[in-house]
Amino acid sequence: MARPAALAERALLLEVAATPTPGNVDRERDLPDLHFEQFLAGATGARAGLEELADGSPLGSGLETAVEGMAEASGTNTQFGSLLLLAPLLRAATTADDLTPQTATAVVEETTVDDAAAFYRCFDHVDVRVDDPPEEMEPLDVRRGSDAIPALRDRDLTLEDVMASAADRDGIAAEWVGNFDRTFDTAARLAIGDGAITDRAARAHLELLAEAPDTLIATKHDAATAQEVQERAAQLDPDDGDDVRWFSEELIEREINPGTTADILAGGLFVALARDEVMT
Amino acid sequence: MARPAALAERALLLEVAATPTPGNVDRERDLPDLHFEQFLAGATGARAGLEELADGSPLGSGLETAVEGMAEASGTNTQFGSLLLLAPLLRAATTADDLTPQTATAVVEETTVDDAAAFYRCFDHVDVRVDDPPEEMEPLDVRRGSDAIPALRDRDLTLEDVMASAADRDGIAAEWVGNFDRTFDTAARLAIGDGAITDRAARAHLELLAEAPDTLIATKHDAATAQEVQERAAQLDPDDGDDVRWFSEELIEREINPGTTADILAGGLFVALARDEVMT
Repeated sequence: MARPAALAERALLLEVAATPTPGNVDRERDLPDLHFEQFLAGATGARAGLEELADGSPLGSGLETAVEGMAEASGTNTQFGSLLLLAPLLRAATTADDLTPQTATAVVEETTVDDAAAFYRCFDHVDVRVDDPPEEMEPLDVRRGSDAIPALRDRDLTLEDVMASAADRDGIAAEWVGNFDRTFDTAARLAIGDGAITDRAARAHLELLAEAPDTLIATKHDAATAQEVQERAAQLDPDDGDDVRWFSEELIEREINPGTTADILAGGLFVALARDEVMT
Repeated sequence: MARPAALAERALLLEVAATPTPGNVDRERDLPDLHFEQFLAGATGARAGLEELADGSPLGSGLETAVEGMAEASGTNTQFGSLLLLAPLLRAATTADDLTPQTATAVVEETTVDDAAAFYRCFDHVDVRVDDPPEEMEPLDVRRGSDAIPALRDRDLTLEDVMASAADRDGIAAEWVGNFDRTFDTAARLAIGDGAITDRAARAHLELLAEAPDTLIATKHDAATAQEVQERAAQLDPDDGDDVRWFSEELIEREINPGTTADILAGGLFVALARDEVMT
């Protein structure tokens, strides 16, 4: 396998280069306040943290380095969700014989309270849109950033525990504690079919969008909007480029950005690259 | 300054994202056998070598790691010329107080015969289109790759010497031994003006194309073609997007690819980023 951290960075870049990806930044479209080149910068900024993860640093600490570097280089939050998903996958790819749902889940199960603390520190570096947590988790609202760490230590919660508590409302947390089902399904889709990897990735993005509501849309708008987008995506003919592009225009017009879907695509791209199942 | 190797990689990515860049790959266009995503892969593959250069490895050795990683990740030669230009700039940015034509030239003047040998080894990893050398330099034709190293050692040539011998027919070699004039001019252009850095970079690409013949075009086609492209570029109105895009279509149709111009743009982008003169 090529250098695993390089493949993780390449996955971030291929995700933003996959075109068209309705509602998200791609080769054809910028959002008003989020440009293509910021994703390129974010990926290069995250690389040092990805190398730390590949070299065996504590999971939370490597993630924090990656998120901080991404935020500094891009000037915003371009790829936090993707990095959160990539972290256990990259660790499994460098420590286990094979990158599988089982080995990635084993990484999740080994996370510590220190990893959870580092995860909370990530939110000191970026603004992230999240839903209100359930009442009993309010002291652990991630928007508190590092201020929430004492409450975290009081309750002795690992990063796996934190993800489990958010899995019902966050698609990346759901991957962490759900065997990375959608991520590995995406990798399997990317491994079949002809054409450029970015074309296959665009199709996988549409299939992901059609199969479940995007949790970033649900958070930023509401559950009904997320469901509407899912249903509309399911009705699209992926081979009708005009149809897909009109849908994209409409989503951008309505400021609907399926960011969690893009994050899962980045995870799937990494799995496919690390397993050497796709050629660029 | 942010991590210098990250900025060098970002310069590679911004170069390919600058659009439109007539005749070259950009967000809007792939070439038949050279795709956008290969440039993304090449940049991630080069990163380890860029880190070596930033960490103080011998110049030729870091360059070889970067070129080998680029070729392995992209499957072809996407950015050899850019890396050759970036190497002394990156070294100067990490060892001198300021990145200037003087400090970059000082790096050139310190190159050794070992650096030259590593440069020749780069050609074992990639196919590069170059002109025939003058007769007395024939044993040192770079296409011989590492087979030319004994002749190189016999003549006791440093990498600076090798670049000086090619400066009349290769635009990157001309930068190495010509105070990096066009590279620093490009950085100065990028530092002024409004708008996204990729838009400013596209304009700088057009200005570079209009001011001198592209040596890759001269090598692949002939001097007359390179001069024709220069003259046509000089007549274009850079604010007339349609005009620029028609020109691009024609160049691609005729398989005219101003690759040296793109390499100089990448160098200029790095200088501007390292001097913190542009925001993404």
